[in-house]
Amino acid sequence: MANIQGIAASSGIAIAKAYHLEVPELTFEKVTIDNPNEEIERLDKALEISKQELEKIKEHARKEIGEEHAEIFSAHLLVLGDPELINPIKDKITSDNVMAETALEETANMFIDMFKNMDNEYMRERAADIQDVTKRVMAHLLGVTFPNPALIDEEVIIIANDLTPSDTAQLNRQFVKGFATDIGGRTSHSAIMARSLEIPAIVGTKAITTSVKKGDMVIVDGNEGVILVNPSNEELSYYRKKQEEFEQQKEEWAKLKDEPTFSQDGVQVELVANIGTPDDITGVINNGGEGVGLYRTEFLYMGKNELPTEDEQYDAYKSVLEQMKDKPVVVRTLDVGGDKELNYLDLPKELNPFLGFRAIRFCLENEHVFRPQLRALLRASIYGNLKIMFPMIATLEEFRQAKSILMEEKDNLRSEGVEVSDSIEVGIMVEIPSTAVTAKQFAKEVDFFSIGTNDLIQYTMAADRMNERVSYLYQPYHPAILNLVNNVIEAAHSENKWAGMCGEMAGDSIAIPILLGLGLDEFSMSATSILPARTQIRSLSKEKLAAAKDKILSMSTADEVVEYINSME
Amino acid sequence: MANIQGIAASSGIAIAKAYHLEVPELTFEKVTIDNPNEEIERLDKALEISKQELEKIKEHARKEIGEEHAEIFSAHLLVLGDPELINPIKDKITSDNVMAETALEETANMFIDMFKNMDNEYMRERAADIQDVTKRVMAHLLGVTFPNPALIDEEVIIIANDLTPSDTAQLNRQFVKGFATDIGGRTSHSAIMARSLEIPAIVGTKAITTSVKKGDMVIVDGNEGVILVNPSNEELSYYRKKQEEFEQQKEEWAKLKDEPTFSQDGVQVELVANIGTPDDITGVINNGGEGVGLYRTEFLYMGKNELPTEDEQYDAYKSVLEQMKDKPVVVRTLDVGGDKELNYLDLPKELNPFLGFRAIRFCLENEHVFRPQLRALLRASIYGNLKIMFPMIATLEEFRQAKSILMEEKDNLRSEGVEVSDSIEVGIMVEIPSTAVTAKQFAKEVDFFSIGTNDLIQYTMAADRMNERVSYLYQPYHPAILNLVNNVIEAAHSENKWAGMCGEMAGDSIAIPILLGLGLDEFSMSATSILPARTQIRSLSKEKLAAAKDKILSMSTADEVVEYINSME
Repeated sequence: MANIQGIAASSGIAIAKAYHLEVPELTFEKVTIDNPNEEIERLDKALEISKQELEKIKEHARKEIGEEHAEIFSAHLLVLGDPELINPIKDKITSDNVMAETALEETANMFIDMFKNMDNEYMRERAADIQDVTKRVMAHLLGVTFPNPALIDEEVIIIANDLTPSDTAQLNRQFVKGFATDIGGRTSHSAIMARSLEIPAIVGTKAITTSVKKGDMVIVDGNEGVILVNPSNEELSYYRKKQEEFEQQKEEWAKLKDEPTFSQDGVQVELVANIGTPDDITGVINNGGEGVGLYRTEFLYMGKNELPTEDEQYDAYKSVLEQMKDKPVVVRTLDVGGDKELNYLDLPKELNPFLGFRAIRFCLENEHVFRPQLRALLRASIYGNLKIMFPMIATLEEFRQAKSILMEEKDNLRSEGVEVSDSIEVGIMVEIPSTAVTAKQFAKEVDFFSIGTNDLIQYTMAADRMNERVSYLYQPYHPAILNLVNNVIEAAHSENKWAGMCGEMAGDSIAIPILLGLGLDEFSMSATSILPARTQIRSLSKEKLAAAKDKILSMSTADEVVEYINSME
Repeated sequence: MANIQGIAASSGIAIAKAYHLEVPELTFEKVTIDNPNEEIERLDKALEISKQELEKIKEHARKEIGEEHAEIFSAHLLVLGDPELINPIKDKITSDNVMAETALEETANMFIDMFKNMDNEYMRERAADIQDVTKRVMAHLLGVTFPNPALIDEEVIIIANDLTPSDTAQLNRQFVKGFATDIGGRTSHSAIMARSLEIPAIVGTKAITTSVKKGDMVIVDGNEGVILVNPSNEELSYYRKKQEEFEQQKEEWAKLKDEPTFSQDGVQVELVANIGTPDDITGVINNGGEGVGLYRTEFLYMGKNELPTEDEQYDAYKSVLEQMKDKPVVVRTLDVGGDKELNYLDLPKELNPFLGFRAIRFCLENEHVFRPQLRALLRASIYGNLKIMFPMIATLEEFRQAKSILMEEKDNLRSEGVEVSDSIEVGIMVEIPSTAVTAKQFAKEVDFFSIGTNDLIQYTMAADRMNERVSYLYQPYHPAILNLVNNVIEAAHSENKWAGMCGEMAGDSIAIPILLGLGLDEFSMSATSILPARTQIRSLSKEKLAAAKDKILSMSTADEVVEYINSME
């Protein structure tokens, strides 16, 4: 059989039997019923089992993958307990004299259709939640097994059309050796999860579910993006050797855990991690992170029905700062809006949410949300090396206004007798082209820059990175992006400030030589990318790369840049 | 009474009596009916009268304001004749035994609700059309007068909450001397229409409808954005004098109609116009346009149920080129998608349409749409001075691909024996930051640049210009915008190419000195802005402005720039 090619989503090599993850048939025959109470009892039982299952899965996800990924199950549990969904189902059983299955299906479909057609990403996600949960309850009503990847107890490679968040949250690294899916790209949810779980994965194969049969032996080469089905003995031994080499390489990487990061010619840079919750710090330390370059605080606000209190936030920030000791921790203030909505904040419906009322724009107009976060950060500042960073800054006025609110709260706290650190750096995300272009003007007033490439690329290319029709324009190596990055770094250095990067690009092996050559000071990435990046940087000559800078910046296309970088190695 | 302040939307001074444009109460009492056929007859009659009215209004709009603005009534007439709307109303009358009013209201509301909640701007616009048309039909059923601004036959100033497209399309310059609205901004539909009609207008007053009574004497000062209600005799004579001066100024401007455009120190630039249809050429010539800087070809594709044929397009392009004689005509190829949808093209629903699959992105993947337009342009090229411009270019590959398709069609036509001009310049819109940043790379391959500031500003600031929550970030004078504009102009000149601008900014009196100083070669604007701009440029010293360039480009905020420009005068 021919090898199957896909998008390499997570590195490493896995060899095991195929396990198809499929949602079972959930059809049923409608029959008339005599006893509605019996049906209500059946429904309650199915709800109860589903609830227990979800609690278990949530706990598993929390331990294995981290708090933030477990949040989806809190949302699912809320759906299961929502009287606005459950009561109409029960009413339907009694009033229409129908089976629990019929009542569940019809009521759920009504809500799903309603939410799906709403012009609101948040409501559409609720539709997906209801769909997910309903399937589970239906399976229990029908006595059909619902796939719980958490229950896999032999070594397998998962084959699926796509993996849902609830699927990936259940994956057990001990048994799930890798996965391959039909759809998805390098930045799709399942790809990001695979990297965070450190299991080899290939996405976007288009036809893996139809090309692989249950029980086929499968090799997933996550380095090259190739899948071999029922390999020959020669192939098996070749890939076992490659697998061993990769394991050895990982051991080599691990030796650098407590080392600082120097280029071959002795220039030091900082490799730090992006995190979402205090639980992530263990991973940062285990992977040799020299600090936290981006603490996304949104997770504190998610999976809830109200704003987190100042004290809740304080506890989280303090925990991260204490765990990191004197290492730098860059905390980004709340970045909601755009694709991230919170049901308890009345965010407006927008035609172009990525170009809308989000992040600092929202916070500056909602000080009742902004000030408690700043106070919590200031109070926690004495427990470590805190740096505060504002997201989505487009104008200097916005930075000045945000900073002056921060300074006000600092004064307020001190006059309340609360101790606040004196050495908190205050910087900004550079993710809007206007800020990258005028970085020189900003550099006089900010303490540091952190370039957020995920957004910067999408605005600079005017292409929504979530939109598959234009995803070919999401080009990290495009000379326009590199020129903007260079402009930010030069501006920072001209004022003796530092410049970091916290987008996906900072951990990318093609981007790293370019960024080192441009003089980037801090690289913030997934914790699992840190050791490979450190290894790579130790083999690179900063001087040689810096000498190629002008040549790279004047290139015409992203392809030209990639070709040149590949030719340098 | 205190003066009322608003946003100056269209210049000039108007003095006349207030005329409130309000939709009448359309309530009715539901009664049971005996004869459904009678109700159906009543409905048919109301539909017929509405149809006749709309035909008349459409014709009026076509003559007074131009083809493109009359399109909305084609849409309204389609609604009136749509059996999918009309048949359910009639069915309801018969099956439910209800009045025509009830059947109309309930059926229309059902469609309106359905379309409104769809995640699709096009369908939401259809909801607005149905709402507009239904009100008219209802008024005729109830025997109530529906406001037809076209029927105004004495000099008035219109006072309204807002003016709908169907309102503005009916305005008769002879009697409507000006208008003032509660809502809207400088780029809202009613403001743009006022400038194209050349009547003074003030929008966004917040409370004009409640502050002015029917028949009040009103002064609209569209230069300063001030409205005076029941002015004193002193005020009246002061404003009559100002009005006269403004008329004199317009006469002064008119003297420059056939003059070229030189700065005070003798540097020549080109002032050209943005147009939508061949009908607009008269206005361009009357206003002294030295060419067409942007021919938006979308109107050829709108208000239809299918693509325009190659011949239809050829006729339109030929007409524009012939009318303009040897003056340059820059035609932009199809820019659909984003906020501009066409029902017969299957454009995808998108979460962020402004960052989506539009313009050249769409055309490169839909050659059956793109090639006929290019062929029509090439065939028309022998009738004038044609320049072809591709919109939304983000990468050099896109330009190369578009140009190679154009060259293919040129070869095809020639081998078919069709004559094609040899001197067609091929350029691009610069409206995406990546292209502005890498203009130097583009300048080697394109013949010219035209900077589209409307989009360039929204992408550079990451702020949807249609979204009121973030409209404060739509800052044409932001140093980031000016630096990008400068980069484009310098890149063009370094390769001996020319750089123009076709966004709103090119006709703005604060921007003009800056752009002249940066060395912009071509300014494309609304035809009515050309003579004031020519007058302004004749008073400016290019050398002095060029000397201030570095200072302006290194400023920190838009406010600083505006303050400095104002201080120079």
